[in-house]
Amino acid sequence: MSMTSADNNFEIRMPTGTDDPLSDAEIQQYRKEIDRLDKEILAAVKRRAQISKAIGKTRMGSGGTRLVHTREVAIINQFREEIGEEGPALANLLLRMGRGKLG
Amino acid sequence: MSMTSADNNFEIRMPTGTDDPLSDAEIQQYRKEIDRLDKEILAAVKRRAQISKAIGKTRMGSGGTRLVHTREVAIINQFREEIGEEGPALANLLLRMGRGKLG
Repeated sequence: MSMTSADNNFEIRMPTGTDDPLSDAEIQQYRKEIDRLDKEILAAVKRRAQISKAIGKTRMGSGGTRLVHTREVAIINQFREEIGEEGPALANLLLRMGRGKLG
Repeated sequence: MSMTSADNNFEIRMPTGTDDPLSDAEIQQYRKEIDRLDKEILAAVKRRAQISKAIGKTRMGSGGTRLVHTREVAIINQFREEIGEEGPALANLLLRMGRGKLG
């Protein structure tokens, strides 16, 4: 079964009460979509960390600071706007991963 | 400038010392890629939370528990394996977002 992009952008049906639960088939499909999204999130998070480290190394190499505070604050605000109360925690996690170990 | 998928899978060059810093053009490109990845992460995180809530509602509607402990533990372990020490924190954040507000 080849996954075309249309396959994984299907509409999510949100049950409203107790009379419209997801069918077993829907739950199967939704679980598979969560697994796919988790892989997508992990891959993007890893790539982001790698890119951020490369930028940080260049800044340090040229005597700059490793971090750009204003950019970090902008990212934290963007994440808060997009996903609400968990936004800052997710942004800070990504920023920590981008700093990597010192040295 | 249309972004083909090839555009955003370019190889990341990691500076090794002080004599091979990223060029300004590279830094520009890497920053844009981080912005693109942040959007991708946010979209996937939002979609994941929506799907997880739909499943949770169905489980509660049919008298089941909202959470499946073994699945949550498996996800936390997967994230630890993939991204290391920040893995559990990221997994737990996604799981919290999937539970949504009670009621």
